[in-house]
Amino acid sequence: MASGNKQLLLYTGATPNGHKVSIFLEELKAAYGGPDYDVFKIDISTNVQKEPWFIKLNPNGRIPTLVDRSRNNFVVFETAAILLYLQQHYDKENKFGFNPATEPDEYSVQLQWIFFAHGGVGPMQGQSHHFNRYAPEDLPYAKKRYIDETKRLYGVLEIRLSQGRDWLAGPGRGTYGLADINVFPWVRIHKWAMVESLDEFPNLKAWVERISARPTVQAGVAVP
Amino acid sequence: MASGNKQLLLYTGATPNGHKVSIFLEELKAAYGGPDYDVFKIDISTNVQKEPWFIKLNPNGRIPTLVDRSRNNFVVFETAAILLYLQQHYDKENKFGFNPATEPDEYSVQLQWIFFAHGGVGPMQGQSHHFNRYAPEDLPYAKKRYIDETKRLYGVLEIRLSQGRDWLAGPGRGTYGLADINVFPWVRIHKWAMVESLDEFPNLKAWVERISARPTVQAGVAVP
Repeated sequence: MASGNKQLLLYTGATPNGHKVSIFLEELKAAYGGPDYDVFKIDISTNVQKEPWFIKLNPNGRIPTLVDRSRNNFVVFETAAILLYLQQHYDKENKFGFNPATEPDEYSVQLQWIFFAHGGVGPMQGQSHHFNRYAPEDLPYAKKRYIDETKRLYGVLEIRLSQGRDWLAGPGRGTYGLADINVFPWVRIHKWAMVESLDEFPNLKAWVERISARPTVQAGVAVP
Repeated sequence: MASGNKQLLLYTGATPNGHKVSIFLEELKAAYGGPDYDVFKIDISTNVQKEPWFIKLNPNGRIPTLVDRSRNNFVVFETAAILLYLQQHYDKENKFGFNPATEPDEYSVQLQWIFFAHGGVGPMQGQSHHFNRYAPEDLPYAKKRYIDETKRLYGVLEIRLSQGRDWLAGPGRGTYGLADINVFPWVRIHKWAMVESLDEFPNLKAWVERISARPTVQAGVAVP
């Protein structure tokens, strides 16, 4: 089903969750020179991700999904689990994450912000996209509900970033890493969720600008 | 703000997310005799969790939130991050989880199912609760959307449990642990999300019955 013979095979699409993984792979490539990865583009509008061959890889039928050819074709699904897998195996100097055994508190803080985005920003902003862009019925209550919740969640990120820090996790002012990569692609497309401006979240806005300026990030959001 | 002097202080309420943590704490108590924990009951209907003193603990203003008095009052929020924190520090024999350094593949698989529940079952079933139970407007489209998505996600768990296994993670037939505890309290109250029966998910139904029979689980869902 997939061509290429590089170390990793990434099934992905041009969505916020897809971009989280491609951004991190580009960061790893810049920091370490690898791993190399093939991209299998999934056009989710055709529901190919619900076909039996894909359900065997990921029973949830969602992208991104990763196959690690160098580790016995180990399969990883769920975006954040992919990021943590890649960090453990391919970020050997822990530039983007923390060693759970030797830095348990930093590891936990990073996980807390990863889960915050995974259970909050992603699903709720996704519902705003649905009701404001795709739903067959015009439902003002639902449209407003999810715009409001997206803003509330951005407000939580703003609180965190206003507490004398540049990045969501890490000691002191923080260190750019998985917690940031895991939520940036959603905040980046805030206008798609009908949050027209980030002006009311000045620290979050500056954080988006810092991340957007990275060449690795620009390369990552161009995949596939 | 909280009385007691036990090792842990758990801010919680009688919700699925709250019950995940209290079930796991009861499992740890049965397996190891501890840690002991004080419970500070949060009545979310009064929005006490949005008050400044609580936002200092958890900027997202949600329960459960854990304070570990024995580790310099380290604070953990986001339910799944709390489970992983407790597993790392208090499940020393890895009865309910895996060591990321020595069992990286099992650790990743467990994380994948934890993230699946954290970003899927929880938020989507929560929206079914909202539109079917609490919303001030009657919106059939939204009601159906989230009932359907809850059932689809239960179907993913059914696929996993139909593949010759009793538990979501672990080798062979699997091992009861964090991945199960992290999603059981949602599936347990499926009727509240208007999923009247689990008959179309026979392996999931049997899994719910197995977990529900555990005295530790019965103790956990009685907290607070």
